[in-house]
Amino acid sequence: MIDIDLKFHQWQWQYQISTTFFVCVIVPSLYYIYSKYITNLPNKYNKLEEPIKLMIPIPPEAKKNWKGRRLYPLSIRSTDPTQIQSFCPATGQYLGTFHAQTKDEMNETIQKAKEAQKQWAKSSFIVRRKLLKTLNRFILDNQEDITRIACRDSGKTKLDAMMGEIFVTLEKINWIINHGEQTLRPSKRYGPSNLLLGMMKNAEVRYEPLGVVAALVSWNYPFHNLIGPILAALFTGNSIVVKCSEQVIWSSKWFVDMIKTVLKLLDLNEDLVQLVVCFPEDADYFTSHPDLSHITFIGSKPIAHKVLESASKELIPCVVELGGKDAFIVLDDVKNLNDLSSIIMRGTYQSSGQNCIGIERVICLPKSYEKLVEILSERVKTLRLGSDIDQLDEIDMGAMISNNRFERLQELVDDAVKNGARLLHGGKPYQHPNYPQGSYFEPTLLVDVTPQMQIFHEEVFGPILTMIKATDIDDAVELANGCEFGLGNSVFGADFSVINDIANRLDSGNVALNDFATYYVAQLPFGGVKKSGYGKFGGEEGLIGLCKVKSVVMDKPLLRLLGVATSIPPVLDYPIKDDKKAWGFITSLNIVGYDFRIWNVIKGFKKLARGGR
Amino acid sequence: MIDIDLKFHQWQWQYQISTTFFVCVIVPSLYYIYSKYITNLPNKYNKLEEPIKLMIPIPPEAKKNWKGRRLYPLSIRSTDPTQIQSFCPATGQYLGTFHAQTKDEMNETIQKAKEAQKQWAKSSFIVRRKLLKTLNRFILDNQEDITRIACRDSGKTKLDAMMGEIFVTLEKINWIINHGEQTLRPSKRYGPSNLLLGMMKNAEVRYEPLGVVAALVSWNYPFHNLIGPILAALFTGNSIVVKCSEQVIWSSKWFVDMIKTVLKLLDLNEDLVQLVVCFPEDADYFTSHPDLSHITFIGSKPIAHKVLESASKELIPCVVELGGKDAFIVLDDVKNLNDLSSIIMRGTYQSSGQNCIGIERVICLPKSYEKLVEILSERVKTLRLGSDIDQLDEIDMGAMISNNRFERLQELVDDAVKNGARLLHGGKPYQHPNYPQGSYFEPTLLVDVTPQMQIFHEEVFGPILTMIKATDIDDAVELANGCEFGLGNSVFGADFSVINDIANRLDSGNVALNDFATYYVAQLPFGGVKKSGYGKFGGEEGLIGLCKVKSVVMDKPLLRLLGVATSIPPVLDYPIKDDKKAWGFITSLNIVGYDFRIWNVIKGFKKLARGGR
Repeated sequence: MIDIDLKFHQWQWQYQISTTFFVCVIVPSLYYIYSKYITNLPNKYNKLEEPIKLMIPIPPEAKKNWKGRRLYPLSIRSTDPTQIQSFCPATGQYLGTFHAQTKDEMNETIQKAKEAQKQWAKSSFIVRRKLLKTLNRFILDNQEDITRIACRDSGKTKLDAMMGEIFVTLEKINWIINHGEQTLRPSKRYGPSNLLLGMMKNAEVRYEPLGVVAALVSWNYPFHNLIGPILAALFTGNSIVVKCSEQVIWSSKWFVDMIKTVLKLLDLNEDLVQLVVCFPEDADYFTSHPDLSHITFIGSKPIAHKVLESASKELIPCVVELGGKDAFIVLDDVKNLNDLSSIIMRGTYQSSGQNCIGIERVICLPKSYEKLVEILSERVKTLRLGSDIDQLDEIDMGAMISNNRFERLQELVDDAVKNGARLLHGGKPYQHPNYPQGSYFEPTLLVDVTPQMQIFHEEVFGPILTMIKATDIDDAVELANGCEFGLGNSVFGADFSVINDIANRLDSGNVALNDFATYYVAQLPFGGVKKSGYGKFGGEEGLIGLCKVKSVVMDKPLLRLLGVATSIPPVLDYPIKDDKKAWGFITSLNIVGYDFRIWNVIKGFKKLARGGR
Repeated sequence: MIDIDLKFHQWQWQYQISTTFFVCVIVPSLYYIYSKYITNLPNKYNKLEEPIKLMIPIPPEAKKNWKGRRLYPLSIRSTDPTQIQSFCPATGQYLGTFHAQTKDEMNETIQKAKEAQKQWAKSSFIVRRKLLKTLNRFILDNQEDITRIACRDSGKTKLDAMMGEIFVTLEKINWIINHGEQTLRPSKRYGPSNLLLGMMKNAEVRYEPLGVVAALVSWNYPFHNLIGPILAALFTGNSIVVKCSEQVIWSSKWFVDMIKTVLKLLDLNEDLVQLVVCFPEDADYFTSHPDLSHITFIGSKPIAHKVLESASKELIPCVVELGGKDAFIVLDDVKNLNDLSSIIMRGTYQSSGQNCIGIERVICLPKSYEKLVEILSERVKTLRLGSDIDQLDEIDMGAMISNNRFERLQELVDDAVKNGARLLHGGKPYQHPNYPQGSYFEPTLLVDVTPQMQIFHEEVFGPILTMIKATDIDDAVELANGCEFGLGNSVFGADFSVINDIANRLDSGNVALNDFATYYVAQLPFGGVKKSGYGKFGGEEGLIGLCKVKSVVMDKPLLRLLGVATSIPPVLDYPIKDDKKAWGFITSLNIVGYDFRIWNVIKGFKKLARGGR
């Protein structure tokens, strides 16, 4: 008896030990092994997707205090018509000369991408995420160098590049890592609504790679605008050929080479990503190349017309992301106008206003208007122009990409002033004492702007803050919608239901409530309406837009198991034996499938049972 | 004591009665009232959405045994260059003359639609479903008349019209009734991936009406092709202007008037649906009209190029649904070749082969090939040509839309025969004894077709069945993909995993497994790849494609409740006080938000806490 009891105790003790051991050691270990090495689900710490560490040499031009000769005159065109020059718009320093590709060379580039894609189409999401994670780590470890490369070619400040280039790119990468695979899994759909057919069929939509996709990207964010389409293309199993802007070839080439290096180190085909460099007048050949399956165009309206016309020759679908004339609506009940003015300043002057979704029009209700004008006027005059690429200077605004549009900016200001606007600051180019070749334009504040002025309608894409007074909410909405663009808008007010209602009335592809441009960093579908273009990139829609969307219908598994196959009902089979019966059969089928009246459905079933008679 | 007990019993009895009464009468009654009059959820029997009954007079031409004079010569052009003629291709009977609209008249039409849409944009889904349900009932109650109208203008048989016009339209209507509202509700999305931002922001995508949309539709299904885009446009809150084919104006006008009558009877604005009638050479004005927000084009490739080029002038997004060269792949293990042949016959000869997704190429593996040729050869010769519009004749195949392409069809057959194909039946036009003016082409069977023949690559769009022998599965896939089109395909075989794998390798927008074209009646997104066009109509994608897709970001409700507003961190505020701190702050923010290495994140947080130093 004692013996038994002892044994029982022993057993119980052993059991307790083993349970504890199992729960505390075995289960976590198994889970650890599973999550690190086995699962193919997205997982931050999945060993199979672990990023590799890499070193890529940084070019001397991207080093701090690089001494480059200044170019004169500043132009992308040199004496050799087959070459394009790069230079720094902030200092005028010469960055390099690049060969403009011929048609044959462009074709060769596309063929390389086409060949590389065949294998890549079959790659797993694990490999694709490993690629993104490696890029993610490289960018985080080299934030300053990447920033400086982007600044050197575009003339912006490092802080502007950090927010507009690095931060948004990291968000894009991480969104795809977290949600990309889920987005691209087959989407189950309802089968046919018809009762009889619906019982038999399953339906789904599958997302498959398109092949070679193209992107024509603008110069205002040389890192982000170039990398964004590449990330989406590679993750969806496509290869990509990017035509960079002729204004920023030097940095584009380095960024593409960076991705090629990452691909090579991961034993992937570096041909998956290709850069096309050419003069604008030669781009037609590229945009109507029959081997392109999709074109993403980020640029201006006049060029968009050309790209679309050219792409129509080969029926290449396009996403066109053009400019905007984004409104920033301020209601009377906004509490902290000082905080609000900080957002307006950042949204207007970041990258010297060269933003697709920069604030182009502050539309303010009467109660806050004068106060806001006063605050902004005080602040705009404190802004300091210059370059912080080589030293950490207290600089607020950098150069513009070139002085090409200075004259037009002045014309717009002059026209506004002539028509009653007040110019409180700026309005003209600025000759920087340290950088006489730099393309600087004074931070400008123009108030009392109305729809009668050209600047109300034309995209400025420069450092000009315009204030417009609205009489009430309806007027504000009408003003916001009263231009040909419709990219993004912001609405600020204390009552959520009021600003949400305004959001619903705004004619634009994106709206931020009590914030500016957050829709852009939330990886939502991004794109405009009206003359801001069409189609979406970013988020789920952006990934799916680069896929062959395939609708597939199949028999339900139970029917397959039972070996029931779909066949043509004998009464409808060629040659039709009895036209009257066939007619009765098919009309009854429609009644049974789609009539809402029970009595008709019963009659329909009866007729079907009689074979249509 | 007894008294109390009695009372208790009485009470108990009353209680039982009232409970029973409550459960059996009150609850169902309340539910009935709720579901019929109050709820705005989709509900077959919702009283608020109850269809109304209507009578619309049927034109004499649509009556049985209508005696119309025969037109000679058969042409849509008459002596008056401002008029277009309609006639019946099966009999040559004259149907009417219609005024071709001038540019001013087209503009007026669009302006009417634009005006009507303003109110309609705000309409409830209840009203929109009531409209669809009324249409659904009218179509079910008038199947024969509608069928005859479609047949009279297109020359097809009534059975073909029933399956290709009525059935698919009813499916479309019912899918929208059942799933339309759900599709158009705002779609919640993940906020920013960045930990800090993500905690603060909610994100969603909203679907709003676009405005005036347009559809240019083909003549092969005059009822279905016209009604489909109208249904989708109205349900999404848009108004629509349809340009019908000049081949089928008579019926298109009646169908549009039918919808206008329904709108009027429901107290809705009949201007919401407009018909444009013009000669092809005048369509450019229409397709580049600045007030159109979207164009759906269903037609042929040469016209598509013109539409796209024209639409690019005003940046109007287009969905282009062109032809196909759909393959029907038969594996060696298919069991019942007789049943299979019935599907091939229906898929090839319905509407005399004038189907976007008709079977254009039967690609068969060796084991079944000869047997299938034998069965089909026996069956094709039984097909009877003619018209059953006026009497229920035993007719299998109707007329073609015109004799315009007869010569080209013969050339294709001749070229194939010259290159080794065997012509087993047909191959030439047919002069019908009863309808000498009718445009009939013999049901044709052409076997041993190879990629060296023109007919392998060019869309036939006529009653020609071509058989191609494949050596194995890989060869079959290569053959199927070996043309410039990519609309739909079918795969038949006994092993599901094998045919499913083939489905994944086919270069097309749609695939049916062990069935033909079911993807079309399942309200999945429909559209092709390669030279079959791009964009989707039908299903969720079709409805959303007619919407302004708006990304909206807002503060999380808890933050709104607490009154926490987004602001620019002081260290990043203009003018930048300390460039080094600002730089430290933003780099740390990126690390905290996006680094996978815990230690880096901790260091980042520490730096942030120190304000970036």
